[in-house]
Amino acid sequence: MKRLKLMLFLMIGTVAIPSCKNSDSRGSNTSKQRIEALIDQMTLEEKVHQLATQYPNANMRLGIPNLSANECLHGIKMDSATVFPQAIAMASTWDLDLIERMGHVVAKESRAFGIHQCYTPMLAVVRDIRWGRTEESYGEDPYLVGKIGAAYIKGLQGMGDERFDKNHIMATAKHFVADGEPMAGDNGAAHDISDYTLHNIHLYPFRMAIQEAEVGAIMPAHHLLNGVPCHANNHIMNDVLRNEWGWDGLVVSDNGDLRSLKRVFNYVPDWQHAARKGLEAGIHQELALFQGWSDHRMYGDFLISGVEKGVIPESLVDNAVSHVLQAKFQMGLFDKDVSKDERFDVIKHPDHGEPDKVSQQDAEMFKKALYVGIPKKDWRETVFDKAHDNLALEVAHKSIVLLKNEENLLPLKKGMYKKIAVVGPNGKAMRLGGYSPDLPKYYVNIVDGLQAYLGDGTEVAFAQGCDFTASTADIPEAVRLASASDITIVTIGGSEETCRENQDRDELGLPGPQQELVEAIHATGRPYIVVLLNGRPLSIEWIAENSKAIVEGWYLGQETGRAIANVLFGEVNPSGKLPISFPRNVGQVPLFYNKLETGRPRNIYNSNHEPLFAFGFGLSYTSFELSSPVLSSKTIAVGEKATVTVKVSNTGPYKGEEVVQLYIRDLMSARVRPLKELRNFVRITLEPGQTGEVALEIGPQQLEYWNDGEWKVEPGDFEIMVGVNSIDLKKTQLTVHN
Amino acid sequence: MKRLKLMLFLMIGTVAIPSCKNSDSRGSNTSKQRIEALIDQMTLEEKVHQLATQYPNANMRLGIPNLSANECLHGIKMDSATVFPQAIAMASTWDLDLIERMGHVVAKESRAFGIHQCYTPMLAVVRDIRWGRTEESYGEDPYLVGKIGAAYIKGLQGMGDERFDKNHIMATAKHFVADGEPMAGDNGAAHDISDYTLHNIHLYPFRMAIQEAEVGAIMPAHHLLNGVPCHANNHIMNDVLRNEWGWDGLVVSDNGDLRSLKRVFNYVPDWQHAARKGLEAGIHQELALFQGWSDHRMYGDFLISGVEKGVIPESLVDNAVSHVLQAKFQMGLFDKDVSKDERFDVIKHPDHGEPDKVSQQDAEMFKKALYVGIPKKDWRETVFDKAHDNLALEVAHKSIVLLKNEENLLPLKKGMYKKIAVVGPNGKAMRLGGYSPDLPKYYVNIVDGLQAYLGDGTEVAFAQGCDFTASTADIPEAVRLASASDITIVTIGGSEETCRENQDRDELGLPGPQQELVEAIHATGRPYIVVLLNGRPLSIEWIAENSKAIVEGWYLGQETGRAIANVLFGEVNPSGKLPISFPRNVGQVPLFYNKLETGRPRNIYNSNHEPLFAFGFGLSYTSFELSSPVLSSKTIAVGEKATVTVKVSNTGPYKGEEVVQLYIRDLMSARVRPLKELRNFVRITLEPGQTGEVALEIGPQQLEYWNDGEWKVEPGDFEIMVGVNSIDLKKTQLTVHN
Repeated sequence: MKRLKLMLFLMIGTVAIPSCKNSDSRGSNTSKQRIEALIDQMTLEEKVHQLATQYPNANMRLGIPNLSANECLHGIKMDSATVFPQAIAMASTWDLDLIERMGHVVAKESRAFGIHQCYTPMLAVVRDIRWGRTEESYGEDPYLVGKIGAAYIKGLQGMGDERFDKNHIMATAKHFVADGEPMAGDNGAAHDISDYTLHNIHLYPFRMAIQEAEVGAIMPAHHLLNGVPCHANNHIMNDVLRNEWGWDGLVVSDNGDLRSLKRVFNYVPDWQHAARKGLEAGIHQELALFQGWSDHRMYGDFLISGVEKGVIPESLVDNAVSHVLQAKFQMGLFDKDVSKDERFDVIKHPDHGEPDKVSQQDAEMFKKALYVGIPKKDWRETVFDKAHDNLALEVAHKSIVLLKNEENLLPLKKGMYKKIAVVGPNGKAMRLGGYSPDLPKYYVNIVDGLQAYLGDGTEVAFAQGCDFTASTADIPEAVRLASASDITIVTIGGSEETCRENQDRDELGLPGPQQELVEAIHATGRPYIVVLLNGRPLSIEWIAENSKAIVEGWYLGQETGRAIANVLFGEVNPSGKLPISFPRNVGQVPLFYNKLETGRPRNIYNSNHEPLFAFGFGLSYTSFELSSPVLSSKTIAVGEKATVTVKVSNTGPYKGEEVVQLYIRDLMSARVRPLKELRNFVRITLEPGQTGEVALEIGPQQLEYWNDGEWKVEPGDFEIMVGVNSIDLKKTQLTVHN
Repeated sequence: MKRLKLMLFLMIGTVAIPSCKNSDSRGSNTSKQRIEALIDQMTLEEKVHQLATQYPNANMRLGIPNLSANECLHGIKMDSATVFPQAIAMASTWDLDLIERMGHVVAKESRAFGIHQCYTPMLAVVRDIRWGRTEESYGEDPYLVGKIGAAYIKGLQGMGDERFDKNHIMATAKHFVADGEPMAGDNGAAHDISDYTLHNIHLYPFRMAIQEAEVGAIMPAHHLLNGVPCHANNHIMNDVLRNEWGWDGLVVSDNGDLRSLKRVFNYVPDWQHAARKGLEAGIHQELALFQGWSDHRMYGDFLISGVEKGVIPESLVDNAVSHVLQAKFQMGLFDKDVSKDERFDVIKHPDHGEPDKVSQQDAEMFKKALYVGIPKKDWRETVFDKAHDNLALEVAHKSIVLLKNEENLLPLKKGMYKKIAVVGPNGKAMRLGGYSPDLPKYYVNIVDGLQAYLGDGTEVAFAQGCDFTASTADIPEAVRLASASDITIVTIGGSEETCRENQDRDELGLPGPQQELVEAIHATGRPYIVVLLNGRPLSIEWIAENSKAIVEGWYLGQETGRAIANVLFGEVNPSGKLPISFPRNVGQVPLFYNKLETGRPRNIYNSNHEPLFAFGFGLSYTSFELSSPVLSSKTIAVGEKATVTVKVSNTGPYKGEEVVQLYIRDLMSARVRPLKELRNFVRITLEPGQTGEVALEIGPQQLEYWNDGEWKVEPGDFEIMVGVNSIDLKKTQLTVHN
């Protein structure tokens, strides 16, 4: 459920707290001792008070500071913050350094707003794009999802000495686990899966987030996994997360999910047992935002009565509290004078200490207070930094995927056009995607972006043509404009209305009369470019066949119009690659490139099984040629590394960037592995005529897989495939011996 | 792959074989000793010779008779045999006694053709109707699939003293396991699943086939299950089938699947290891029909060379041979003088004993020989029994599902019409579905069936209107005919061309221009009835909304036209129930009634999640009212049984049959169970105004489920739901205590 815009800030000013320098290190004896000492002093009510995330969880009496959390899917979700391209667009960059830099900026802005933790990133490996949250994901490939996710986490949290310092926040990898493959695309639908696929596909990016980026927090998923709610799933929460991976961070429940243990899944006899199950699964905090549901909070009165009745051992509560306090130590909140550092007005909760009694009126008051109480002093200095906007533009540029460019219709040439038409529902409307602030810093729409780029010499005129419902359509108006213009930009796709959390779909065509709009513009015979802004792949077979140029932008953030203008006119040569396959129709779903072999020949009546646009695909205005891959060694031992080098030549007329992708196939394995698995990639920039070389490492991370309880590299032959998408690949073979 | 029409019969006349009265009992010491003695005498080549199914597997030297096998999905697949309704139609009867009677007839005809075993039934629980083999299934519910399958097996094999006697054959439950949920509906696609769902959904009907019907043989599935080929899957083949269930019957590989271990899945290094893996999984025989593939047979030369090289222990071969011989003993083949009993001409294989050397020419010769060599004497007496045709008609009547009947348009009244139009591609064409003989005994099409029923007083005229491709359409002709007729029967749906094995679909609308045909007939404003003949549910939302009467016939066998005429004119009151849900569109798939609860509210953009027609749904010309269910006891102990009784009243104007369905919900369980699970059903026939009572048992079979390694009834509360479909249910509650 979409969270209410309720953030409570509470300032602690009176209790002196001794400094604790190494508090951010997990194993710190000092912080461990202090946590134990604090818990010893706490009443049960004070303990329970620590376990709510969005009520103030500070404690005046003991000097425990507040940990405040929010969302930062593509920028911190606070009004006036910088809005970057949506997650699916971030993944289209295939640029880890860029995403890490973005993370640093988002963290800095978050801290300026007084936020210490974000419920980001979403590491779902999306195998059913009917799911509305596809836009929040990094696509269909576990390696890409893991790498993009880890890069963003590194930026948000910082690494090394920077980790969790005053410019960084705690990231929360979610939703643990396998939320990206819901039955028929329904958000939260039960998912059933073997341990084999659970590890190799869905757990994979979480493991990477922990091992490579040391993510601080995790949020369990909403659904039943093999018949057990993720929020009470001992196997994933304890066997895998703690025992197999040795991770010991903060676990935060998602909104209402502990309640669902009783109310939705009837997995427990009463609310107290719901609380107990959550604590046993090692869930330390509860998001609890619904007002007016007296039975909503499991970690509130029910926890207290559960302990009093003997249903819940207090040791389980202590374990949860110790993890919350550990997070507060990690974030350095005990180290400083919060009243000075956090720069907020004091907002006092009238029922502080009794969060269960928050009424509807209180909630409204607090909601208002949030906006009144936003930091008054210098948050603007941080947030209104032009460098942030420039970075948002850079991410937008690299997010754009050129899907088709027949007859080199693109790039357009500045100065050639007197009048440019923009038609379609996405030409002027703000399209930021889910988990955006209501009031972003600004939004450059496509019309404004083009006009600003082209200046007074060219008129950029707009006719919407249609929205997403037939009732508001005026396609003839758009046709008239297109007919009277030199070229038309058809801005179509989706919106937050058609694709978002809890807004799934059962068909994947363009919503509303947009298809008619495109066909009507096409019928004019005048040149046009299709620009897509949308949260998930659409089945646009007619457009792919008939239109000459297609640009996929996803949601490009506050710089949408500028980024589109720069790409259309060749100021920027597009270099984005699809992180997710485009199906030709909804009946092909689930469709992903890394399938296992089928046991019978595939034969689909009047159709075929090919995607419309494949994973990893994306064109450039220039052309690249790749040499055959060369291995540094044809044979390595298990645990060793080889390098594959490929020469890349820019054989076209423009400077450009290409993403060289490495796929492997384990030719024989104890359990059958996919035909292709992305396992490395690198960007290279080349001038026209220039040839460069990229080197891609092939080591344990490239070759390993999980089977029967462990990650391992099995000796044998591996096919090593290199290319600029997942289809056209040049091959070599590597032998791994014991 | 569709099997070549190659059946080899071999007669043994010279070797005297002592009678072995108890040879059909699995544990018989006599047959065990004789099997051991035979194996001791056999050369390796003679052993391997036993492991091919469709080469003659007799052995002159040792007097080992031939076991011949074929398909009998809905009748024995031999020319001139009685053709019953397709499997999905059989399931629509929800009539176990009827299906068992059908099994007896099919077995009798099979034996008349000299066939001892059939690769039937298919017990797939179909959760993705894009799959072409949906027509071969008994639908989406494990209990219904299991019960229909067990009833058919009981008929085919016989029970008690009749089991495997000279009027019965050995059934083969297939495909083991979980073939009904292939990724995106692709036949043979890899499937990934937890043990929980594997047992409760896909293994469920196989367990029933073994425990209730003592099925003699099993065929493994084509696909990768959790990354392991079913044909080499120790977990399902040994842990579950043998160790958990204690079953020890014959296991026959499907065509080419042992070869796929190497060629498709690369799961083994060479052909010898493919053979070994198969033997280790306890696969005893190999279907091997592809000619011209020198590397095709794993249980041929490769087995011999494998044993000689020491790759394959001969004990594995012996185990396979002993199971084949056991089946031959079970079928009583050692007991009799085959030359007299089987009544075939001798067909000698020129390379008898060297089946690997069968050439393409040989295969052609044998194919011809099959038809030339069909039993000459009295098979016609058996097959051309009018009682068989009457039974085929009875099954067809009960298969038909009335989906809609607005304004009581049906039943039509005989004598009211001067001219009836039949339009659409299924009015005259023979539609029998997959695994039918090329030349059935006869086929009554809908036009002929109506004309025969109505006699000379009414003209039944036909205009096809369209086929399944646009190029052959002449819709105006059909419209002219409809406009000039009193009423029109629109005969649409699918065909073997649009739905069959290896003919999957990625959309579920009416193939070709059939939708246009319906809309054109509708536009005439004249009355019409939609009659569907098809192998899988179609998404016919427009028809469901706009047409007044819809009759679903699936494929109704040789009596199609007569059954349709009898139902349309009320000679028979339809009573079939859907064994599978109809989705409104392909984007809803997978769609089945027995889902687990979702963790978030479902919200589908511009759509909803309801089926078009629900599982268990089917109308009657009369109406029924059900009383609230009454339990014999509100509380029972684990292991005990209760009875739920329901009064059923026929409140309409016609005599009719109703299927009362019992669903359960385990309100709280160690692992969450579906919201509804069909667990019993019964048919009742009532005169107008009559009230009857049905009693449905609720015992361990109704309440148990598999979790963490065992089947069990968990104490607690169960919701008991009774109704005439899966949606409109009256409830009561049962408490189970320890």
